[in-house]
Amino acid sequence: MNSYLKDDERIDQLYSKNISIIQSSKVFSFSLDAVLLAEFAAVSRNKTKKIVDLCAGNGAVGLFISERTNAKIYEVEIQDRLADMASRSVKLNNLEDQITVINDDLQNTTNYVKKDSVDVVTVNPPYFLNYETSEKNPNEYLAIARHEITTNLSQVVQAAGALLKMNGKFFMVHRPDRLTDILVTMREHRIEPKSLQFVRPSKGKLANMVLVSGIKDGHYNGVKILDDVIVHDGDHYSESIEMMLYGKR
Amino acid sequence: MNSYLKDDERIDQLYSKNISIIQSSKVFSFSLDAVLLAEFAAVSRNKTKKIVDLCAGNGAVGLFISERTNAKIYEVEIQDRLADMASRSVKLNNLEDQITVINDDLQNTTNYVKKDSVDVVTVNPPYFLNYETSEKNPNEYLAIARHEITTNLSQVVQAAGALLKMNGKFFMVHRPDRLTDILVTMREHRIEPKSLQFVRPSKGKLANMVLVSGIKDGHYNGVKILDDVIVHDGDHYSESIEMMLYGKR
Repeated sequence: MNSYLKDDERIDQLYSKNISIIQSSKVFSFSLDAVLLAEFAAVSRNKTKKIVDLCAGNGAVGLFISERTNAKIYEVEIQDRLADMASRSVKLNNLEDQITVINDDLQNTTNYVKKDSVDVVTVNPPYFLNYETSEKNPNEYLAIARHEITTNLSQVVQAAGALLKMNGKFFMVHRPDRLTDILVTMREHRIEPKSLQFVRPSKGKLANMVLVSGIKDGHYNGVKILDDVIVHDGDHYSESIEMMLYGKR
Repeated sequence: MNSYLKDDERIDQLYSKNISIIQSSKVFSFSLDAVLLAEFAAVSRNKTKKIVDLCAGNGAVGLFISERTNAKIYEVEIQDRLADMASRSVKLNNLEDQITVINDDLQNTTNYVKKDSVDVVTVNPPYFLNYETSEKNPNEYLAIARHEITTNLSQVVQAAGALLKMNGKFFMVHRPDRLTDILVTMREHRIEPKSLQFVRPSKGKLANMVLVSGIKDGHYNGVKILDDVIVHDGDHYSESIEMMLYGKR
């Protein structure tokens, strides 16, 4: 067994990038959401200096983005076990110089990264409101990743707003059914929405994901509705998704 | 000259419906926005009893909807000349029993239609913020129809909220670049957004219109992102638009 791995873990490859990532179906595996978010986030090779990925999970988004930029990347994850997986994936890819894993509540991020200093914040937060009555995953790792148990949309956006420099960029993947919450909360915390891209499971279907970008202290309005991402084409992935996953069709 | 017409007016036909409408390129002509809004608005033949169309212009939306419902329709238009055109179009179509034109500021609508009594409000409001520096149409009729001069988004949504009964439905066409303003304002005035449909000039282009529905005092969230409307297919209208305009391809 590979010395990087614990228990039920395995190493997966994102073929479109030269990245290996430690996963566990019992604890956390990245999903298409992370791939889409990493692809959506606009970063530049040299101009982007500092990136923070909140709700980092096993670190997938930061790992995927690392190939496109020389920026320092901070991955913030509250769950010890997931942060530990992320740290080991960073080592596995020899990215210790570029990526730092912070195992803490995202509300404490400014203890590690200076306020108003970050160029880009990415986040794939828990999507679901934590009603008492919500049906939650009995697996606590997954419940925390999916429901707003240890954080919520308002805290996420507030934390991002505190970290970002003026005109810094915010990129989030979320559920379109919460679009009003998303846009209201972003404006409330001074991150003005600038583009939306809806993701549909297949052509003609209701969108089930939305990618949102915003600019800290950006002028009000000017939202662009980018072309939809269509995930499946018949019974296989669409060409754009295959490119993201495999780097080829 | 047809006795219904004044000056530079003409009578246009919406071929997909049995409706004639008085237009004037100098004063006001309905555009695709009105056709899309009328199509988007969910009304029922008998269950919908009362509809108010705000910012009615020459009355196109109310006229188009009238064929699909037995509801009473009130068209509210602040500009005398446009309200007069709307009234004459109502007569031209023998719809005086169904459609009433109210020539007043939309903020006074509850002087004519009881508060909390309306099933459906539709509105195709002025899209553009009225900055001092905005380039406005020198034609005052068109400037008022396009820029927030005599009303604004907040007043429009507030007026709709006052008119609608609990769970009454709101349908608006607007510009996606103001999506945050739209969703923030709707929630603020107790009309919770429930569906969005983006309209693209052609496949793959940025959306240039958005259709929004909301429910008065609806539960928060649950926004559905409907399939896009694509206006052009190559150098002609797409099939769905041709159906709306001509009732056939």
